[in-house]
Formats: sequence, structure tokens, C-alpha cells
Amino acid sequence: MTNTWNRRHILSLADFVPDEYDTVLQTATSFAEVLSRRTKKVPTLQGQVVANLFFEPSTRTRNSFELAAKRLSADTLSFAPGTSSLSKGETILDTAKTYWAMGTDLMVIRHQQAGVSSAIASLMDRLGAKVRVLNAGDGQHEHPSQALLDLFTITSQLDAKHPRISLLADKKIAIVGDIVHSRVARSNIWSLTATGAQVHLAAPPTLAPKLLAEYTAISDDSAQNRQLYLHWQVEPALQDADFVMTLRLQKERMTQHLLPSGREYHQLFGITRERLKLCKPDVKVLHPGPVNRGVEISSDLMDDPQFSLISQQVASGVAVRMALLYLMGSGK
Amino acid sequence: MTNTWNRRHILSLADFVPDEYDTVLQTATSFAEVLSRRTKKVPTLQGQVVANLFFEPSTRTRNSFELAAKRLSADTLSFAPGTSSLSKGETILDTAKTYWAMGTDLMVIRHQQAGVSSAIASLMDRLGAKVRVLNAGDGQHEHPSQALLDLFTITSQLDAKHPRISLLADKKIAIVGDIVHSRVARSNIWSLTATGAQVHLAAPPTLAPKLLAEYTAISDDSAQNRQLYLHWQVEPALQDADFVMTLRLQKERMTQHLLPSGREYHQLFGITRERLKLCKPDVKVLHPGPVNRGVEISSDLMDDPQFSLISQQVASGVAVRMALLYLMGSGK
Amino acid sequence: MTNTWNRRHILSLADFVPDEYDTVLQTATSFAEVLSRRTKKVPTLQGQVVANLFFEPSTRTRNSFELAAKRLSADTLSFAPGTSSLSKGETILDTAKTYWAMGTDLMVIRHQQAGVSSAIASLMDRLGAKVRVLNAGDGQHEHPSQALLDLFTITSQLDAKHPRISLLADKKIAIVGDIVHSRVARSNIWSLTATGAQVHLAAPPTLAPKLLAEYTAISDDSAQNRQLYLHWQVEPALQDADFVMTLRLQKERMTQHLLPSGREYHQLFGITRERLKLCKPDVKVLHPGPVNRGVEISSDLMDDPQFSLISQQVASGVAVRMALLYLMGSGK
Repeated sequence: MTNTWNRRHILSLADFVPDEYDTVLQTATSFAEVLSRRTKKVPTLQGQVVANLFFEPSTRTRNSFELAAKRLSADTLSFAPGTSSLSKGETILDTAKTYWAMGTDLMVIRHQQAGVSSAIASLMDRLGAKVRVLNAGDGQHEHPSQALLDLFTITSQLDAKHPRISLLADKKIAIVGDIVHSRVARSNIWSLTATGAQVHLAAPPTLAPKLLAEYTAISDDSAQNRQLYLHWQVEPALQDADFVMTLRLQKERMTQHLLPSGREYHQLFGITRERLKLCKPDVKVLHPGPVNRGVEISSDLMDDPQFSLISQQVASGVAVRMALLYLMGSGK
Repeated sequence: MTNTWNRRHILSLADFVPDEYDTVLQTATSFAEVLSRRTKKVPTLQGQVVANLFFEPSTRTRNSFELAAKRLSADTLSFAPGTSSLSKGETILDTAKTYWAMGTDLMVIRHQQAGVSSAIASLMDRLGAKVRVLNAGDGQHEHPSQALLDLFTITSQLDAKHPRISLLADKKIAIVGDIVHSRVARSNIWSLTATGAQVHLAAPPTLAPKLLAEYTAISDDSAQNRQLYLHWQVEPALQDADFVMTLRLQKERMTQHLLPSGREYHQLFGITRERLKLCKPDVKVLHPGPVNRGVEISSDLMDDPQFSLISQQVASGVAVRMALLYLMGSGK
Repeated sequence: MTNTWNRRHILSLADFVPDEYDTVLQTATSFAEVLSRRTKKVPTLQGQVVANLFFEPSTRTRNSFELAAKRLSADTLSFAPGTSSLSKGETILDTAKTYWAMGTDLMVIRHQQAGVSSAIASLMDRLGAKVRVLNAGDGQHEHPSQALLDLFTITSQLDAKHPRISLLADKKIAIVGDIVHSRVARSNIWSLTATGAQVHLAAPPTLAPKLLAEYTAISDDSAQNRQLYLHWQVEPALQDADFVMTLRLQKERMTQHLLPSGREYHQLFGITRERLKLCKPDVKVLHPGPVNRGVEISSDLMDDPQFSLISQQVASGVAVRMALLYLMGSGK
């Protein structure tokens, strides 16, 4: 693989260009092939250190990045909140600086506050440090690696050997659920509109964005805006959709009175076999996990390999994260 | 080593056959030899992923499996309760499915509820997944790797070069303590009765099983039943015993009014130098750890290498777990 | 590198001899060179097991040791309080014995109580175990690896290619802050007085030691005592100092009424640009971290590479810990 990657940090998909998406998809395809071998390890990042700094608890994403790093033969360091010196009054930037001084090459950062990974990336650049920073979820802002693995999952579904963004040019994709609080939705909107797909958001009014403009970089009457639609019911979003992305419903939204109950949400916005009949016949359903069974998706649908891409998303996660660490770690 | 292992998952010892026990003992002997070298690593499981999913806190067993996996050159993933997405409402089976989709080859599972590892194993089979599942303790049900390391420890004591179950055919083994709540006791009863040993259980009435029948697979008048005896005092169990297995006393049994106090327990059931005089002169004492010093065993006895096999058990644990991961991981 | 190291355990610097300091500095220099390469790994401790037993929470030191061990290609085990069997009533010595029985070669131990690592080292010697023990901080007693990395940092500042203790013979070093509770101060006093430097302690009366004698091994009128001075103001300690070591201020000292407030402490003892004018023009400031910005050091000074050696200390930490693990692990 030749590495023409020029991006130093991966913090947001807002300014990703088509070539970058295609490079990620192509590189991830190579690593997915590595993962299908019996020995799933390559020496690419041997001797390099990947620090997984998850200031917000996480199992799935942390393990996915850790496995990706190990399969690239990197050494890993991890930060677990609770056993941390943060409770000792150190600032997050000072913690990041410590990991840099220890010899970290790549930092993967999750934090409950938007902008933390960007702040750390800026600090590293100011210090002249060669550290690369990857945003693994910052508050309600972005979660680029999740959107990239979603993109890899759906484009691989259309062409397993050569996934590329142009495959989505004429597709309709529904994103259903708690749009306004979702960093996954936000990153996915950037990537999917960049492919030329029609993106239809469906959310209850309390969980819908007030303005679509905040999700688009360009002016209102632009082509991109004519790709992005908002609905307060699920049905128009599902109508003839090729892919349905469901979002996780956080229980705390109910205590905040933004949602009545899981059961009522399921009645209005839950994805069921019945509702899928509105979509294209070969529609596929995604969910970033962990799923509340019977809330976002009906339980039987979740386990039906004809419709559900959920396990493929998890598998894609490792390949895409290997690709991202590889592109950043061996780049210029 | 040739690998004739056919068992997909290791969930229980209830249906283990003599050949399987001997294969484990023989394989563990080879790995114990590896562990005596300066470089204690072999490339057997290179590129494979062992996920240690300990839903119940554990230091000893988790570290033992982790070390076993690392010495076989596997990559390890771990699940720590507290930082998990379980708190986010995901089911255990969905969590297991996620680890499978990530690329896990072997899952080592501990859970406070009986049957969890079996349920995960069934799910994997239903999915057509190649994942192997090892039960590292499920509620009060079974803890097969502990019983196998106990078996390796005592048979190695009788013939270090060639431990085998037939060595125990005419031996008397006492198991003393909280039998009814102990997954260690349950697994040990399966393995020890399979060797032809005489197994004598000793427990206070509140901690003794109501029926021995639940510990045996075959009818009441069978040979196996004539191998298994229950006593409400410790002395008849110790009389002429070759090995004494003590069980850990959980403090919560006292708050449940099943036990008066640690001190009183020690007076009635604690293993002391005095009580050991009832046994064979070369008797050895085991304990799965962690020990409450001065409760299950008197403190000085615990540290006496003439009698105590406790450190050997810990050492055997790594060799036996390497053997189990090897047999499962490189099997058909 | 030839290894003439004879010390079995590293528990305290009280009896370190000049040759030992110079061996550590020289070995760390070699490893610092390894760390400047793209592939920062050496196979020195391949197949050996380093157990990081941090009974007291730690991010910085634990990660530093873990990275050092990984870069020497050792396998690592770790102990996290909270998920431990300590809560199950096991003694610390029994826990250590378990790690030994599992096959640990080197134990790195931090505990909130003074003397724990020494007790474990004595146990290992009594058992005839080959395990080496390194004290990574025991209560208010000692933290040898921190003092050695401080020594490496300041001697490398004076001669990067050939750091050695004789470079400090005519230097003045101030140690400022909570001397009496600081294991970092205690270890640093041993190492710095051994170099022949003049060591000036500055602390508020409530945080100052009552007797300097407890910090020195030899009688009152000795040369060493004439190297160690105590001040209740910061200014005389800073006067013409070559290096200023600041100590971390624990918030709990305030609830213990030993300190008024962080702000007041900063006014009286905080290191600022203004105060640094008292020192030599090329003075450098150290802090073991994590720093309370604006308390021990003014925030802008902390980030000023002209004065601050804080990041160098963190980087030195990995090289010095690699050196210590190497010297202990491959020694006689």
C-alpha cells in the first residue's frame, strides 16, 4: 500500500474530501483481508505506542481500537477514568502532554466534552510534537471512526472488493432517532452527504435539530442541502430507503423529559419488519451499539442476518481503525 | 504435541471422559516444562485473540488466563465490569456477539450467574461462529479450569513426569468447607470421582448439599456414588486422607446466618497440624485461594511447604490454562 | 552493555553507592538512545513477566513502568485495586506470593503504607524466589525510581552524552514544598547528597521535617549533614540555586489544617518568574507531577521550555525505568 495520506489528525469529518474517504475505504479493505487470515497480525506499527485515552467509559470502541493497535503490532497504553490523576487536579491538556512526553505516537481520545481532542491536537502541534490525534468521540460533536466504519460497512455491502463513495451517489439513507444529541449522526451526515447520497433524518421533535444548516458547510440552496432532509415521523424517511441507520437512545433523555418511554418510542420510531416494508426490498439496518433491544429495533429484526448489518459494523470497526492508525502512523 | 482434542467449549466437567483428563494433564506437563525455561513463551496462538470477559471481579483467575494467553503469544482483550456497556442496557449475549464480531477466537467467561458461559457457547454455535468458550466460573455451578489445575497439582505430586488420572484410583480425597455454594467443589467432584478416587465431603449442615445425587450423573447404586461420601464433621473425612482440599469461606455466608463466625468455623472445620495427624503421613493440603488465614487453614500450616500445595496450585494454573487454550485454539 | 549490577531489589536509595548511581545513569543513557529511534523496542526481557502491583491508584508511574516493560519486550501483568481479591480478605503478602507462583520475574509495587515493598522483598528472599522487587512508592517513605529519573534529568542537562553524579558536586539544589510527607523528597535527598550537591529544603513549618537527622545515614557533624539545609522560607533556598525541585501539594493537607489554601501557599512558596531571579540565570525547575497549576508553580513558568524540565522528567522516566528493569532482570 502506498500512503498518500496528508491529514495529521482525524478530529472531524466536516472537511474530509472524497479522496480521503476513498483512501480509508481502500485501506480498510486491505486490512479486512488481513483479518480473514488465520494470523491476523502485521508488523506495521511495531515499536510505536498507541495511547487509548478514554476519559468517558467505553468497552466497545476502546476494545476495537486496542485490537486494531495490537494487530498492527503497536504497544498500547490506556487511561481509565477513576484510577487517574485527573482526580488529583491535573488538567486534561497536562495529562495529554504527559502521554506525549512518555513517547506516545498516536493518541485516541474520547471525552464527554466536545472539542477536547481538537484542543489536544492543537497543543501537540504547538509543542512541535509528532503525535497524531484521533477523536474517538467528543461529547455530542463528532465520532469520525464510527461514521467511517458505517461508510465501509454499507459501501462493502454494495461492492465487497472495491468499496468507494461513488456507490452511494443515488442511494437513499435514513438516519432515525436521537439526532440532536448524537455525535454518530453528526459525523455520518458529513460523510454521507459527501458521497452524494440522499440523507433523510427522522426524529421526534424534541430530539430533532432546530436547523439543518449546522450540519452543512455550504450555503442553504447548495447541492448538499438538497441532499439532507428532516422528518418528524419515521415513515417518509424509510420510504424507498436503501439503508436505515438507527441511533442509540440514551436512557437519560427520558429523565430529561425529552422522551416519554422506550415502549412509546418504539411504537413511533422503532424499526420493525412491518416498517421495513416501506423501504427497498434489499434494505439493510445499522446501529452503532449497544442496542436497547425492542426500543430502537425490534429484537427479532436485530438478529436477522437478512436485514441487520450490526455484526458487520463491529467487524468493520477493527479493519477501519487499523486503516486509520496505519494512515496516520506511517504518514508524512 | 499432536492434538486429538474434539471438545469445542469447556463449560463443565460433568461429561468429561478419562481420555480428556489425561490429554489435559499431559499437555499441561509440556507447558509446565516451557514455563521452567528462561524464555517462557511459545508462538502457538500468535495472531489469535483471547477475550477475558470477567463480569464478576477477579484478580487471580483473570491474571492466570491473561498470562497463559500471552505466553502462547495470543493478543488479549479484556472486559472490566464498571467501565462496561452493560450498564448501558445491552444484554450479555449481545456483548458476547460484539466480541465475536470484533474477531475474538477464544472467550474466557466468568459471571455471577450459573449458565452464562453455556448460553454464550450456544449462541456462538447457532451463529456458526468458530469461537471457543471456556467457563472461568459461573455462579455456584462450575469452575472447570480450577478443578483441572487441582487435578494437575495432585497427580503431578504423585508422578511429576507423567501425571495421569489412574494415579488417584485408590486415593482418599477430602473436600472441606462450603460445599453447597462452591463451584470449585462441584467441578472437583466430577473430576475426582472420574479418576476412581474416594471423595469425602465435609461441611457444616447449613453448607452441605441436601442430596449427593445432584453431583453424580449416574444412578444411586452405581460405582461413582459409592465413591462420594458426605460428613457433617471434618474428622471422618480426614481419616487416612491422601489430599485435603479446603474451600474458601465467603464472608457473606455469615451475614446470611449460615455460619456463626470465622473463629468458630476454624474450631470445627479448620485444617490444623493437629487435625492433619488423622490423615496419611504425607498428606497435602490445597486451597483455591484467596485464603482467609486462620479460618479455613491455620496460618502456619498454609506456609509449610511440607503440607501446603497452594503455591503449586497457582503455578499449575498457568500451565493448565495454557493447555486448555492450546487444545481449544488449535483444535479442529 | 555489561551488567555489573549486584543489587537484588530496589527499595530505597539510603544505601545506594556512587557506582550504582553512575551505572543507572549510564544504562538510562543507552535506553534514551533506543527511545529516539523509530522502533523503540529491544528484546532484552522477552518471555519475562513484569507485574505492576499498584495498590494505590496511579496513572503516570504505572504507565511509565508498563511502557518501560513493554519496550524491553516483557509481558506485563497488572493489579488494579477495586477489582482485587484484597477486598476478599487476602493479605498483601499472600497476594504477592500468588504473583510469584504465577511466574512473575519482576514486581513493581506501590502501596500507601511505608515498608510494603520491603516486606514483599523479604518474603521473596525467604521463599528462595528469584523475584526482584522494585519500590514504586511506599507511603511517605521512598520513591527511588522518581529520584533516579530526576537525577538523570538534571545530570543529562549538564552533560547529555555522559550524565554522571560528579557533575553535581558543586551545585546547589532547592527542594520546595511538602517535604515531610513526600517520598519523592526523601529519595531525592539520599541521591542528591550522595552526589556532593548542596541540598536546600524549603517548607512551611507544618510541612517541614522536625529533624534533618532522619534523612541522613551518618552522624551530625559529617560532611553529608553539612550538605543538607532546612529553611522555613523559600528565598534562601532559591538563592543561587542551579535546580529547583518543586513537590506536589496534596489537597488533603488543607483539610488536615496543615495548609491554609493553594492560593496562600503559592504566595509564600510558589515558584514564579520573579522568584527565579534569585537563582542562577540558567536555573531549571522540576516537578514530579501531576502539577496543581498556579499552586506549586505559576502556570506560564510550567510551560516555558527555558525553565521547565517537567516534560523531560516524564521522558526520562521511561528510559530510567527501562534501565532499572534491565539491570535487575538480567543481573546475577
